[in-house]
Amino acid sequence: MGVKLGILGLGTVGTGTVQLLQDSAGRHPLLQEIEIYRVGVRSLDKPRVVELSTEVLTTDLESIVNDPAVDIVVEVMGGLEPARSLILKALSNGKHVVTANKAAIARFGAEIFTTANQAGVYVMLEAAVGGGIPVIQPLKQSLSVNRIHTITGIVNGTTNYILTRMQTEGSNFSDVLADAQRLGYAEADPTADVDGLDAADKIAILASLGFGGRINLQDVYTEGIRQVSKTDIAYAEKLGFVIKLLAIAKRDTPSSPLSVRVHPTLVPQAHPLASINGVYNAILVEGEPIGQVMFFGPGAGAGATASAVTSDILNLVAVLKINTAVANPLLACGHQEYCQIAPMAELITRFYARFLTNDQPGVIGKLGTCFGNYGVSLESIVQTGFQGELAEIVVVTHDVREGNFRQALAEIRNLSAIESIPSLLRVL
Amino acid sequence: MGVKLGILGLGTVGTGTVQLLQDSAGRHPLLQEIEIYRVGVRSLDKPRVVELSTEVLTTDLESIVNDPAVDIVVEVMGGLEPARSLILKALSNGKHVVTANKAAIARFGAEIFTTANQAGVYVMLEAAVGGGIPVIQPLKQSLSVNRIHTITGIVNGTTNYILTRMQTEGSNFSDVLADAQRLGYAEADPTADVDGLDAADKIAILASLGFGGRINLQDVYTEGIRQVSKTDIAYAEKLGFVIKLLAIAKRDTPSSPLSVRVHPTLVPQAHPLASINGVYNAILVEGEPIGQVMFFGPGAGAGATASAVTSDILNLVAVLKINTAVANPLLACGHQEYCQIAPMAELITRFYARFLTNDQPGVIGKLGTCFGNYGVSLESIVQTGFQGELAEIVVVTHDVREGNFRQALAEIRNLSAIESIPSLLRVL
Repeated sequence: MGVKLGILGLGTVGTGTVQLLQDSAGRHPLLQEIEIYRVGVRSLDKPRVVELSTEVLTTDLESIVNDPAVDIVVEVMGGLEPARSLILKALSNGKHVVTANKAAIARFGAEIFTTANQAGVYVMLEAAVGGGIPVIQPLKQSLSVNRIHTITGIVNGTTNYILTRMQTEGSNFSDVLADAQRLGYAEADPTADVDGLDAADKIAILASLGFGGRINLQDVYTEGIRQVSKTDIAYAEKLGFVIKLLAIAKRDTPSSPLSVRVHPTLVPQAHPLASINGVYNAILVEGEPIGQVMFFGPGAGAGATASAVTSDILNLVAVLKINTAVANPLLACGHQEYCQIAPMAELITRFYARFLTNDQPGVIGKLGTCFGNYGVSLESIVQTGFQGELAEIVVVTHDVREGNFRQALAEIRNLSAIESIPSLLRVL
Repeated sequence: MGVKLGILGLGTVGTGTVQLLQDSAGRHPLLQEIEIYRVGVRSLDKPRVVELSTEVLTTDLESIVNDPAVDIVVEVMGGLEPARSLILKALSNGKHVVTANKAAIARFGAEIFTTANQAGVYVMLEAAVGGGIPVIQPLKQSLSVNRIHTITGIVNGTTNYILTRMQTEGSNFSDVLADAQRLGYAEADPTADVDGLDAADKIAILASLGFGGRINLQDVYTEGIRQVSKTDIAYAEKLGFVIKLLAIAKRDTPSSPLSVRVHPTLVPQAHPLASINGVYNAILVEGEPIGQVMFFGPGAGAGATASAVTSDILNLVAVLKINTAVANPLLACGHQEYCQIAPMAELITRFYARFLTNDQPGVIGKLGTCFGNYGVSLESIVQTGFQGELAEIVVVTHDVREGNFRQALAEIRNLSAIESIPSLLRVL
């Protein structure tokens, strides 16, 4: 038959995908039925590492999504526009779409999936989260027979690389970031990664699939790793934790609102996510009756992402082969409602806090009293050392309502003995 | 519509599956379209933890696979016969089959899949390997765009539990086995687990999916953990390894024969599989271009296995909804040929060996010379201590052809200085 692909973008992921498809021996035999029919690029003159005939390459991306011969549009150009418009146009034109664009899906998922459902086509996004790790399909299919209660992920390789190096080398954030930029592990503008925005896009997508509703990206509480200090990493280690940027979606009961958040977190050293280091990603899914399952693998990179993009293409080739008008309920998006998101003040979590205090007698007692006033019970409180004239006190709480903890902190800030609270982190 | 299930067996997995299906709120909405229509049991009088009406329960299992109203047969009775015959009859009668029966699939896969293909129905087996971990579907679908070169799994929870306890407690195999039997982690007859037979069934299935060919179970080299001693676990730890029962399928190039084997293995402590402890399972898949992905989760248990069984049922409900005569190439089995399996003598691996020697001068030199005669190069050779009169020497080789290593060992056995070779293990 020959399934005709229109690929939008020939950057890292697009090139990786073309390389994979042009070298199909030893892979799933269905891949041999795929034709790279059109590839949309910004410039025809740029040197390329893949060979494509001049009829295939075009700078007219609109023409690809409008070409009646194209069966599947593969959007690997990234960015919000024109990616969004091209995806919508392709869907309206009855083409299935594969995309690696977490930012577009997290922001425009509602209109993209509505358009796809109306046109009777599918939007596939395995590459949008976790690079090559198959996690989107398991969440949509295998794991969906469970009542999912928690999805916890290390979904941003850049920040995990930085935190891993800070921990193993005892280095500062800014030094490691500069080196990561030099080595190509961090972008020149690292905002999306280090401020947690990329992870927020991804947990919004995972939460939507795991909890069966749309997620408003603005509802995702997002805190990056800029304020994580080597001091806190060292204290955390002594207390039996590592610090990871976690993306978490959690629902205590099927009827309670969802908590969706990204923040640096103290993770117990024995936890499965604690040993995920470097640029690797891992997604831990917990549900009933399955218990815990974890997916681990390369979170980025041309090859890994190309694997995920091509697996989506493969699924769509199978769909086209079956050639039925009935929508597959495991491929189509069935979410219509938005998930109700709990405010952060309602979160129940443990906290780690570091205080700089004037070395007065009774300061630990005063801290304890303030916490006690708001029902914050402490797991440990340690005076760890001195910074100049100031004594350093580190506290780890038991589970506490975040709102109560913040009230206690406000009172603590007014204590004359308290100079500052340089660190405040949540504990898994 | 209502999809009618005929369930064969109401043991642990069958009961878990019925419980899941009878409590469908908060799970995938398609599950609500499923009717538990018949359940075949050995005795109608046995007390059950699930409520099923008397019309549903029957001791006539043949009648279930022959009932025209049944859409999907769920075989969770285990064992070889009558499971095999019932599966074949169900398929011939045009029913899709879900099975958790690794032993039957590993032995009778060829006739089962041939029968399914002829009847235009599917055999789903997510629960056969890795309990609740979604690994079968990713191997058949997402990961199949890769050239898989290695699948390495900890796929037997009982042996992993025993080895983990031997390591943490410094205990003997027989003591931990007895305790595991008392606690229900090991069967009264532990043969299938501790001798590696269960793991062999599972790696045969994984290899078949990953490498696209049938596997003759007799070709799977299988060595259990009975001979793993606490002494070797302790030495391995000093050398930077943990001992795991690994199931491995590996192909160096797409045209070379496959190596499929189960044996206790020294795993470097930093390897992702080294930290998989207790009854957990993990499967590491390596391929091009994806690199490494790992799936981790509960390898057994009613809930986890019920999750996998039900995910297969869900997939089949979607298939029945689409209602097309064209076979889905990602669900049907496309293997016709048997994989060519390499003899163990051709395996390239590292070895760990422990020698008891008479404490003569020059014994290390003699060992080294024998190894050198057969091209075996040593990574380390350590005289570790004494057992009574005898000196204990531990050797770790570099990668070596197993046949060469065995020839060197035969020569070493004839050395007068060598009393015995109590341990011989492969190193990852």
